[in-house]
Amino acid sequence: MESVDGYLHFLSGVLAETRRIALHHFSRTTAVRQKADGSPVTDADVEIEAYLRKQIRAAYPDFGILGEEQPSINTDAEHTWVVDPIDGTMSFLSGSPLWGTLLALLARSTPVIGVVGLPVLKQRWIGISGKKTVRNGRQTCTSQCEALVDAKLFATSPDMFSPREYEIFDAVSKRARFRRFGGDCHSYAMLASGHIDAVIEAGLEPYDYLALVPVITGAGGVVTDWRGEPLSSRSDGRVVAAATQRLHAEITNETRSVCA
Amino acid sequence: MESVDGYLHFLSGVLAETRRIALHHFSRTTAVRQKADGSPVTDADVEIEAYLRKQIRAAYPDFGILGEEQPSINTDAEHTWVVDPIDGTMSFLSGSPLWGTLLALLARSTPVIGVVGLPVLKQRWIGISGKKTVRNGRQTCTSQCEALVDAKLFATSPDMFSPREYEIFDAVSKRARFRRFGGDCHSYAMLASGHIDAVIEAGLEPYDYLALVPVITGAGGVVTDWRGEPLSSRSDGRVVAAATQRLHAEITNETRSVCA
Repeated sequence: MESVDGYLHFLSGVLAETRRIALHHFSRTTAVRQKADGSPVTDADVEIEAYLRKQIRAAYPDFGILGEEQPSINTDAEHTWVVDPIDGTMSFLSGSPLWGTLLALLARSTPVIGVVGLPVLKQRWIGISGKKTVRNGRQTCTSQCEALVDAKLFATSPDMFSPREYEIFDAVSKRARFRRFGGDCHSYAMLASGHIDAVIEAGLEPYDYLALVPVITGAGGVVTDWRGEPLSSRSDGRVVAAATQRLHAEITNETRSVCA
Repeated sequence: MESVDGYLHFLSGVLAETRRIALHHFSRTTAVRQKADGSPVTDADVEIEAYLRKQIRAAYPDFGILGEEQPSINTDAEHTWVVDPIDGTMSFLSGSPLWGTLLALLARSTPVIGVVGLPVLKQRWIGISGKKTVRNGRQTCTSQCEALVDAKLFATSPDMFSPREYEIFDAVSKRARFRRFGGDCHSYAMLASGHIDAVIEAGLEPYDYLALVPVITGAGGVVTDWRGEPLSSRSDGRVVAAATQRLHAEITNETRSVCA
């Protein structure tokens, strides 16, 4: 594996360009198509992912690539880059600044580097396995919240849950200090920096959550699936992120029943 | 009534200071108390409203004041300033930039000037009865969306609706191109600038919606209660805002049944 500094240099270069592409398309009348699953895809998604794949192939020809818009390649490789060009496409289409570009590096199936870049807000979180997470270059950490009753809790939308999942989410989230919807990757970034305390979601894809793992873990938080198991590219898309071990345990104690 | 220019000069001065106060408190550990209705109030809310009331009393001693945090005064006056120091307090507490300061001037009970200021995003919408709405000084307008099936539709939270209201909201919003939650005043600003096409909400207070009326109307949109009646300080807190007359009619055709 290349040195961490090598990867960070690569990321810094490509993220400057993806930010430029994204902001060029943001708040313009951009072409939108529907994907097979009904979700929207914009010119920005397509252009950013094509750019990232080209840069990755040039710099890391042996690495796998797992992205949102094109088929995975070389997924048996020891290292794989995971790419979400625009996480929060509906926010992007709605003039909201709460969308971002996510990149993760997997060693085997474990995320060891994660980046969340929020172009409009000029904010970037970088998480590296075994290191402290940084936000715009400065160390950042989760809150000390240990009890659900004190927690500010987010989910992107009630529409992301199956009826059974929603039943569990609803029961848990109603016991929080407050619950709010919206946010996509912005919510996890706010969790990493102590502004909110928990996120409970479902229906996510690996490119939606793998980059979050080093960011949240390195900020002192815990992020797993609903059973409390580590997230990998084979997880079921259900995610619980919490500021502390104790809060995470209180939540997963309830959410794990979905798997019963 | 003073000239419009006089009011705009007053607003420009006070909004620079409310922005400064709000950003001073944003992203810090700010004291939060619960109001009688369970909603949170921060030092920023209290400080901004106190500042605005002081400025209004000095500049417009005969005017009424209707605000979120303190009792109304002089509400029989011909003119009343309506103040929401932080619309979107939960976003404010969550590190999200989607909150703002709202000010409306009522002539009798009709809003004739409305301002939405979004401090973090450095954006300000000003609506004046009979004039075109401006965003940061430049004219802005709603989208051309005429059909619900094409509409990007927002509500701040499913939790703002009564069960009966939610039933109607759910049926209508599921027919939209997409529906998203979150946003508070930011959603209405995005509607005024054509990024989204409709907002359907309930449980709002006069200080939450009166400033939006001149902003949305002057941008070419329509905003009323769920029956299609004009909004006033005596409305029931149910709001439908839409980019066009036709879209508004399609939505209120459904929402008016809540009042049956």
